[in-house]
Amino acid sequence: MSLSLTLVIVAGALAVLYGIAQTASLMRASAGNARMQEIAAAIQEGAQAYLQKQYTAIGIVGAVILVAVFMLIGQLAAVGFAIGAVLSGLAGFAGMLISVRANVRTAQAASEGLAKGLSLAFRSGAITGMLVAGFALLGVAGYYYILTDVMGLERTSREVVDALVCLGFGASLISIFARLGGGIFTKGADVGGDMVGKVEAGIPEDDPRNAATIADNVGDNVGDCAGMAADLFETYAVTTVATMVLAAIFFRESEAVASMMLLPLAICGVCIVTSIVGTFFVRLGKSNNIMGALYQGLIVTGVLSVGAIWYVVNNLIPTAVTVGERTYDAQSLFYCGLAGLVVTALIVVITEYYTGTGFRPVKSVAKASVSGHGTNVIQGLAMSLESTAAPALVIIGGIIVTYGLAGLFGIAIATTAMLSLAGFIVALDAFGPVTDNAGGIAEMAGLPPEVRVSTDALDAVGNTTKAVTKGYAIGSAGLGALVLFAAYTEDLKFFSANAEPGSFFYGMGSVAFDLSNPYVVVGLLFGGLLPFLFGGMSMTAVGRAAEAVVAEVRRQFKENPGIMTGEVKPEYGRAVGILTSAAIREMIVPSLLPVASPVVLFFVIKAIAGKVDAFASLGAMLMGVIVTGLFVAISMTSGGGAWDNAKKLIEEGHHGGKGSEAHKAAVTGDTVGDPYKDTAGPAVNPMIKITNIVALLLLAILAHGVVG
Amino acid sequence: MSLSLTLVIVAGALAVLYGIAQTASLMRASAGNARMQEIAAAIQEGAQAYLQKQYTAIGIVGAVILVAVFMLIGQLAAVGFAIGAVLSGLAGFAGMLISVRANVRTAQAASEGLAKGLSLAFRSGAITGMLVAGFALLGVAGYYYILTDVMGLERTSREVVDALVCLGFGASLISIFARLGGGIFTKGADVGGDMVGKVEAGIPEDDPRNAATIADNVGDNVGDCAGMAADLFETYAVTTVATMVLAAIFFRESEAVASMMLLPLAICGVCIVTSIVGTFFVRLGKSNNIMGALYQGLIVTGVLSVGAIWYVVNNLIPTAVTVGERTYDAQSLFYCGLAGLVVTALIVVITEYYTGTGFRPVKSVAKASVSGHGTNVIQGLAMSLESTAAPALVIIGGIIVTYGLAGLFGIAIATTAMLSLAGFIVALDAFGPVTDNAGGIAEMAGLPPEVRVSTDALDAVGNTTKAVTKGYAIGSAGLGALVLFAAYTEDLKFFSANAEPGSFFYGMGSVAFDLSNPYVVVGLLFGGLLPFLFGGMSMTAVGRAAEAVVAEVRRQFKENPGIMTGEVKPEYGRAVGILTSAAIREMIVPSLLPVASPVVLFFVIKAIAGKVDAFASLGAMLMGVIVTGLFVAISMTSGGGAWDNAKKLIEEGHHGGKGSEAHKAAVTGDTVGDPYKDTAGPAVNPMIKITNIVALLLLAILAHGVVG
Repeated sequence: MSLSLTLVIVAGALAVLYGIAQTASLMRASAGNARMQEIAAAIQEGAQAYLQKQYTAIGIVGAVILVAVFMLIGQLAAVGFAIGAVLSGLAGFAGMLISVRANVRTAQAASEGLAKGLSLAFRSGAITGMLVAGFALLGVAGYYYILTDVMGLERTSREVVDALVCLGFGASLISIFARLGGGIFTKGADVGGDMVGKVEAGIPEDDPRNAATIADNVGDNVGDCAGMAADLFETYAVTTVATMVLAAIFFRESEAVASMMLLPLAICGVCIVTSIVGTFFVRLGKSNNIMGALYQGLIVTGVLSVGAIWYVVNNLIPTAVTVGERTYDAQSLFYCGLAGLVVTALIVVITEYYTGTGFRPVKSVAKASVSGHGTNVIQGLAMSLESTAAPALVIIGGIIVTYGLAGLFGIAIATTAMLSLAGFIVALDAFGPVTDNAGGIAEMAGLPPEVRVSTDALDAVGNTTKAVTKGYAIGSAGLGALVLFAAYTEDLKFFSANAEPGSFFYGMGSVAFDLSNPYVVVGLLFGGLLPFLFGGMSMTAVGRAAEAVVAEVRRQFKENPGIMTGEVKPEYGRAVGILTSAAIREMIVPSLLPVASPVVLFFVIKAIAGKVDAFASLGAMLMGVIVTGLFVAISMTSGGGAWDNAKKLIEEGHHGGKGSEAHKAAVTGDTVGDPYKDTAGPAVNPMIKITNIVALLLLAILAHGVVG
Repeated sequence: MSLSLTLVIVAGALAVLYGIAQTASLMRASAGNARMQEIAAAIQEGAQAYLQKQYTAIGIVGAVILVAVFMLIGQLAAVGFAIGAVLSGLAGFAGMLISVRANVRTAQAASEGLAKGLSLAFRSGAITGMLVAGFALLGVAGYYYILTDVMGLERTSREVVDALVCLGFGASLISIFARLGGGIFTKGADVGGDMVGKVEAGIPEDDPRNAATIADNVGDNVGDCAGMAADLFETYAVTTVATMVLAAIFFRESEAVASMMLLPLAICGVCIVTSIVGTFFVRLGKSNNIMGALYQGLIVTGVLSVGAIWYVVNNLIPTAVTVGERTYDAQSLFYCGLAGLVVTALIVVITEYYTGTGFRPVKSVAKASVSGHGTNVIQGLAMSLESTAAPALVIIGGIIVTYGLAGLFGIAIATTAMLSLAGFIVALDAFGPVTDNAGGIAEMAGLPPEVRVSTDALDAVGNTTKAVTKGYAIGSAGLGALVLFAAYTEDLKFFSANAEPGSFFYGMGSVAFDLSNPYVVVGLLFGGLLPFLFGGMSMTAVGRAAEAVVAEVRRQFKENPGIMTGEVKPEYGRAVGILTSAAIREMIVPSLLPVASPVVLFFVIKAIAGKVDAFASLGAMLMGVIVTGLFVAISMTSGGGAWDNAKKLIEEGHHGGKGSEAHKAAVTGDTVGDPYKDTAGPAVNPMIKITNIVALLLLAILAHGVVG
């Protein structure tokens, strides 16, 4: 049977079906006692209320941009934008809906044993993972099917390319808002709650007397679950689209263009199946090694994916395709896919090294906590800086190997292969916040301490797997940078070559991105500053949100002394409400930074030096944002994970254990790492993508001649 | 009278004479009472012992490299390397010798009033500043004089160019060791001493019972004075050399080549004179505004420099020079110089905004300290990330304006004009550690608290001016990046065009640095990772050095209870000795990273993809190291300054004042900021230069045909 677009769509549907079936099974699990259900209901209510408001706010921005896309590019592009935006939002919403139901059930399951807790938490993560991958694949493949097979448009036409790019844009735009808004909410609650609870009032984390507790748990669901799901949806969709666009450009003149454009979708399709199979291999062995159980599933998925990719490539590319000087054959493209899987594996291993409790980095941070707060933070920052080197070298290796095998298209295929495992990787990630929440519920509902021990053990692994997903997402962005850049340069060439007299691109000549052109350097530096400025803005936003929480919790303690004695329940809803407003207010400006920057740079340089240099500068900006963004994001996410787990290591009894001075220092480090790893760091990934996509769209808009 | 090389050398000599004369006057000031002199002697002894050992260690590395330079390039290059290395070392040593004598005299002067304290401290800074500028100008101009006027070599010949580049290499190599070794020493002592003294033993900073106190004061002299002096020597020498090399390349065929090569030296020469004049305008007004007094001097220097540069440019370039398509006239080159001065002014203002106690950033960090250690660090990191944006925009603006005026040579002239003020800028910087030391001596010698108030006020301004110098140095590196990159590309063209059959460059064709070449991206990413890895390694080194200090001070407290009661003096020398070994051991590997990296990258890519791509990748690496290095360095130095001054702000009585919880949190932030701003951050500047110069030398070595 020959592979076809229909089968890809079936694979996407399969993932969604898996999600639905597993959800039904999840809902049958016990939701614990009445107190637990009451707490869970409060979390659920808060999360839903927040996401509704967040999506309303995003919806307004989205509607304005939708109209702009419609007027500047066209109808099909606007529909693509809407599909990407809606599905990205849906992926996030679904992730939240699952996790607010799984948390209490995981708490209950953990009270019956670690293995049961792991099984339930992981299963809920897998639902989110498969829904993310399924929605993304259905969105891209489905719209592509409609555009080409139903509407009969030429697959390499601008209409199709622009529509697909706009789908990616919609996904990216929602995802940066969701990542950032959710990140500000969750870390504002976490940092603010800890400061006023642990530090001022001297009550433990997740104590029900702290008015910010529910908000903290809500945050895990809207930030770490919903935000992450939207982010990975975006990464998946944009990578697939970029690879398809590159295939459309490179193989325009070849008969193999349909196969080559189908290739990324087909790889994603089969790897959804291998990911689903892999989930069944996550089982806790006798050694109680949680990370081992997760690895088992990942390795099964990886090994099956190697075979699956081999099958797909050989099926779609039976004979070698020659374009220009380069020949693309099944073998070299298969090796590219394999390289993508190897990059994924190496990033997982490196991230585990830097954030796992068993290795030098986390141990060194824990040890440094003994001498005080300052040394904990210094060592954490040292590790966060150091942790960027190995992943960067892996990405460099990936670029060199895959370019050697099959040029830029080889790099694109490697990136696609990396992302094809997203279903499983998201599963690894989403289980973290669920267990974090389960621990909170166990604490608040007064379950026996053993339950908390189980959920804490799961949570520590969750810190690592969360860092893994982020390293994976940003790593794929690093590898994919060249793909997006290539799409930009090839589009530019296309528009130049096909410009009609009088149009914007007419007679412009070719654009070189040579580093000896100062405008290229200007672009690099301007792009380079964005992740830093964006990081600074989002860290400040978390600080402000946390201050608002502190003020509110203090007020409640003061106005109602019965809260501290446990006689009166605090007004959890008010803390949630305050954070909701703060997060939505704070997310707008930083999110629009990457949307506006490419446009501003282009028109400023155009006014100074003309079109050609402006395009060169804009291209360099895309590279600049990757070059610094990659390092900023990895350092933040790995560093944050290391701080969190250094605290966990001490809580396990090292260096004086809970309550010791070392523990206090480790709590400081964890607080610092929170906005690093859960707000600023992960939002850099969609930020990079948006900058790139906006640049691509700017070309399309200029070509349409409406502005310029 | 027409300007000549002789006059430039006279200006250099004038700076040295100023230094000698002022030193004599400085030595006549009272060195305080016997106790003060005893303490000062201990600091002096420790600093001298450390620097001797450090320079011995560097000497060994330097000797090996000297032999390599001699064998791979030639005799004149080796002599150049030796001149740069020796003078850089001398500048550092002189800075230390001055500051260990000025510290106690400043303490004495401060006891007679703030104005006297400022006057003495600033004067000592000015001595170091003029010696740095004088040595650098004498070195470059003197060797250039010998090579051309005495030995009669063609000024654009490879011999001359290679010899000058090697002079820069010698300066850079010493400077990275001095910056890093001194930085590890000073922050190891500071962090370690604070941890065990303030935190564990509960004794105040600079308490004589703390065995690390003398080491801490030694550190100010060997790190902030000697290291900084070597660093600025390097920046000055490398910038001047790079501009001369560029002039030699661009104007090779023109009659104006001698004038153009003289231009950077002449600008530096006249600006030494304006800097000396400016120092006499630093006088404390009635308002006791210290920063205002310093600005007064800087503004006088700046305004006079505008006139001086106008004079120099018009004198040397009486008629417009046309090369290729571009015409260089006095007016446009003057505007480039002016742009360099404006960039300097803006960087000073921006840095003051981010690190001064009167503005939002420092205030926000101080305010965040109220809620705890974690929020202090979060806000500090937020500000540190944010603080990169404005300087980057200024540098971008500088590139655009000066390139528009006079191409790459215009950028080089702007960078030279920036650096021509180095004498004054170093004066601003070097006064900081002197007052810091003076405060320590006042504390240890039991001088009245008013003295400490005066020295603290001076020290707070010193934190800002220290950040200013670092921002200035790294800013000039950002602007100068294109100059060094242009030197690399032009050299490459030259070698390619003039290669003899059979030689390395023969028939290689031209090298493009186009971002669509994946090997260029590989180079960018590889260069980009260096500042992060280097930063991580140096932060870890400080942590280890601090731990060694903690262990030693603890041991002394334990084995000798008389220390705590004040009956027995601690063994200060042992702490100094331990730090000396630690700093020298820890500085080697990170310092060699930028030396080895370009060579490794080149040969790896050459093996994979051939010469042309290897050169492209290496060139991109030079740009990559600037793009991330600029942001890493600015964020570290500004962030560190903000943390330090937030602590100062609280100590002045805000948010609860000394001893409050907010103060404790601010001390944590200060501790974190210490290695950020005084070790890792400033060492990034010489690191960038070394990478660039090694690449230039690699070209020369390959052209000589010894290796390859």
